Amino acid sequence: MGGDHGPHITVPSAVEYMHHDCETNIILVGKPEVISRELDALKVSPGSRLRLHPANEVVGMDEHPAVALRNKKDSSMRVALNLIKSGEAQACISAGNTGALLATSRFVLKTIPGIDRPALAVILPTISGHTYVLDLGANVNCTAEHLLQFGIMGATLVSSVENKPNPSIGLLNVGEEDIKGNDVVKRAAELFRSSGLNFYGNIEGDDIYRGTTNVVVCDGFVGNVALKTSEGLAQMLASYLREEFRRSLFSRLAGLVALPVINAFRRRVDHRQYNGASLLGLRGVVIKSHGSADSYAFRCAIRRAVEEVRGGTLRNIVEHIETLRNNIEQNIAQPVSIE
Amino acid sequence: MGGDHGPHITVPSAVEYMHHDCETNIILVGKPEVISRELDALKVSPGSRLRLHPANEVVGMDEHPAVALRNKKDSSMRVALNLIKSGEAQACISAGNTGALLATSRFVLKTIPGIDRPALAVILPTISGHTYVLDLGANVNCTAEHLLQFGIMGATLVSSVENKPNPSIGLLNVGEEDIKGNDVVKRAAELFRSSGLNFYGNIEGDDIYRGTTNVVVCDGFVGNVALKTSEGLAQMLASYLREEFRRSLFSRLAGLVALPVINAFRRRVDHRQYNGASLLGLRGVVIKSHGSADSYAFRCAIRRAVEEVRGGTLRNIVEHIETLRNNIEQNIAQPVSIE
Repeated sequence: MGGDHGPHITVPSAVEYMHHDCETNIILVGKPEVISRELDALKVSPGSRLRLHPANEVVGMDEHPAVALRNKKDSSMRVALNLIKSGEAQACISAGNTGALLATSRFVLKTIPGIDRPALAVILPTISGHTYVLDLGANVNCTAEHLLQFGIMGATLVSSVENKPNPSIGLLNVGEEDIKGNDVVKRAAELFRSSGLNFYGNIEGDDIYRGTTNVVVCDGFVGNVALKTSEGLAQMLASYLREEFRRSLFSRLAGLVALPVINAFRRRVDHRQYNGASLLGLRGVVIKSHGSADSYAFRCAIRRAVEEVRGGTLRNIVEHIETLRNNIEQNIAQPVSIE
Repeated sequence: MGGDHGPHITVPSAVEYMHHDCETNIILVGKPEVISRELDALKVSPGSRLRLHPANEVVGMDEHPAVALRNKKDSSMRVALNLIKSGEAQACISAGNTGALLATSRFVLKTIPGIDRPALAVILPTISGHTYVLDLGANVNCTAEHLLQFGIMGATLVSSVENKPNPSIGLLNVGEEDIKGNDVVKRAAELFRSSGLNFYGNIEGDDIYRGTTNVVVCDGFVGNVALKTSEGLAQMLASYLREEFRRSLFSRLAGLVALPVINAFRRRVDHRQYNGASLLGLRGVVIKSHGSADSYAFRCAIRRAVEEVRGGTLRNIVEHIETLRNNIEQNIAQPVSIE
């Protein structure tokens, strides 16, 4: 029911997705009359592959997470997460209130043993492919141990979904050298070095889009600022380009000639294809779609959920944590010296 | 003597600048034989407007700041800063080692009373103009009080250089609401609200390029990541655009037709025009140029220094701090309640 556009986007998007992936069944959770109206408009009836599950409350986009958690026990978000807990569903996709989704999913599903806090991971494009960045805003006060856990989860996500055996992890910092960074990041680098993970070392902001590593780890404050700054810059550059192509009669004509090329460029940088942040570290697959997602973007978020389930990300994180935990705990017990 | 290209860029750039600004005199500090060679190549002789001041050591670009500070007392950087201290020069521009410039200028010039730490401020373009962002990496562990001081310095810089009486200040955060952010940022927002400054409130990463406020305040870790991430994204987008225009014979032809428009766009986003980060909070004007700056970019850094001197930024910060300090200290003494 959530998102800026609600079921008017999510319902058609789910129906469309199901047509292209005959191995996935979908449960639409929310107010039955609202969902039925959307299905009627599409001339689609619920059936064994597309079920409707009632939930009579909706968490508002600006509602305080704690209030939503306490008062809205029959919200579409809460009920959908309960379906994962009961084993009826394998993943939950929501375009709703991010804070409420974080709080509610943590309350309903609980975290995986060894993970203190779930983290939001997104895919970002790079010069030659893409990379996974986490955390994107679930945790604004992080310890070094949290950053290590983000690294483990990110690497497991990449190896599960992309079949990459030993993904490289970069720690987002203000310089490559060991002496760079704040206290938390320096300590996190020590933990990574003794973790047995494929730790590349410190990376800088420009390494994200350069694709230096498969996984980029940062605290949620830094990650959120990096992502939003990128959005702002992309919008500004697009606006500049538009203005230049509209400046004179000649530039308008040039724009017409170059239109197929500009369109190919726009398709390539279309952020909708990266929609769907994975909420990692929970005992269930939860995907957060951008609130303003359109039907295409929301389908990308559904695909992300399906890929995570098929890749066995959840089981792999549990196993990976288990294997690494002993190793890491042994190493943490011995002080690591840094020159 | 510093920077990736050394005097081969800085000397011609200084000579060129002087030709366009007859009210500015320049002192070239460094190894006399190296500087003389560059001047000879330009067929320029030192005179009253262009002096040569010897310094026989050079701080390496990768040298540890503390080592440079301790051992290189006759470095071009140190000698140039001494010239400010003795009153012979009013500003120092360096393309050298950032860490060493920070440490040495702090040691030689000391901070303004009321300022604990200098901060690096840069100008970034926005959709409709530009904004000033600080700190860009001088301080990776900041307290709320430091962020407040950055705000005071940034606002004073804008009002001095741009003649804007009461510039707006935004605090970079992960959301607009008061409850958003980490502990330091929340506390900083309280301080800003009771400071009497023109505090806009929390802003997000995309507000930087949207130009929501005249000044953007953040700690050096976050600021550095935001800036470097922007550089990386811009490089990636430029690379994508180049690739699309080279994809086929048609797109190459379209590229030729659109070349004047693309060039106008490139001129507009040319980051060289924003070269020159102000090291604010010191008892002297110090400008850090990008190490890889070319002659045009380095001239922009010189212009930045001249503007700061002419605007009386230094004197204004001292006065502004003095005026605000009482006000702020009174407010800090009374606990501020936040709902």
